[in-house]
Amino acid sequence: MSESNAVLIGRKPVMNYVLACITLLHGGAKEITIKARGRAISRAVDVAEILRKRFMPDLKVKDITIGTEQVQLKDEEGEGVTPRNISTIEITLTQ
Amino acid sequence: MSESNAVLIGRKPVMNYVLACITLLHGGAKEITIKARGRAISRAVDVAEILRKRFMPDLKVKDITIGTEQVQLKDEEGEGVTPRNISTIEITLTQ
Repeated sequence: MSESNAVLIGRKPVMNYVLACITLLHGGAKEITIKARGRAISRAVDVAEILRKRFMPDLKVKDITIGTEQVQLKDEEGEGVTPRNISTIEITLTQ
Repeated sequence: MSESNAVLIGRKPVMNYVLACITLLHGGAKEITIKARGRAISRAVDVAEILRKRFMPDLKVKDITIGTEQVQLKDEEGEGVTPRNISTIEITLTQ
């Protein structure tokens, strides 16, 4: 799968991401991957579920993977860095 | 799988749920299912990842499913009910 078919979930309203997915799928993408980290993970599941239940009932969940990424957070003084683990999810949908 | 091997994720600190899972697994459960709805979904992924990466590296992710549940919310006056969709996740881990 080409990486251009990935939708990265951030802090915008859920419907923005649903629309991004629909645009990719109507533009000919056979499959898309919805990716999120940390608190955005529940929003990623919302996006996948709204897509499947409301807009594109033929979409199938092909794969769901979870993982851990290490992020380097700058401390208050902007000097030292503290490594912190953050959970990730990737939801692959196919039509 | 017996339903008693399910851990439902709520609003307590993540480590409470990690400990509940470890207790089940050390008590002889071959597999457990971590379940969550709505905002708690990202915490469910945290629980699974902390378990696998920090405490029980032999745990395998057997299956992850996502879904939608309808919840009936009472309105302000406690009279009418508004159906609302909420996303769910179930993460099954085996040892």
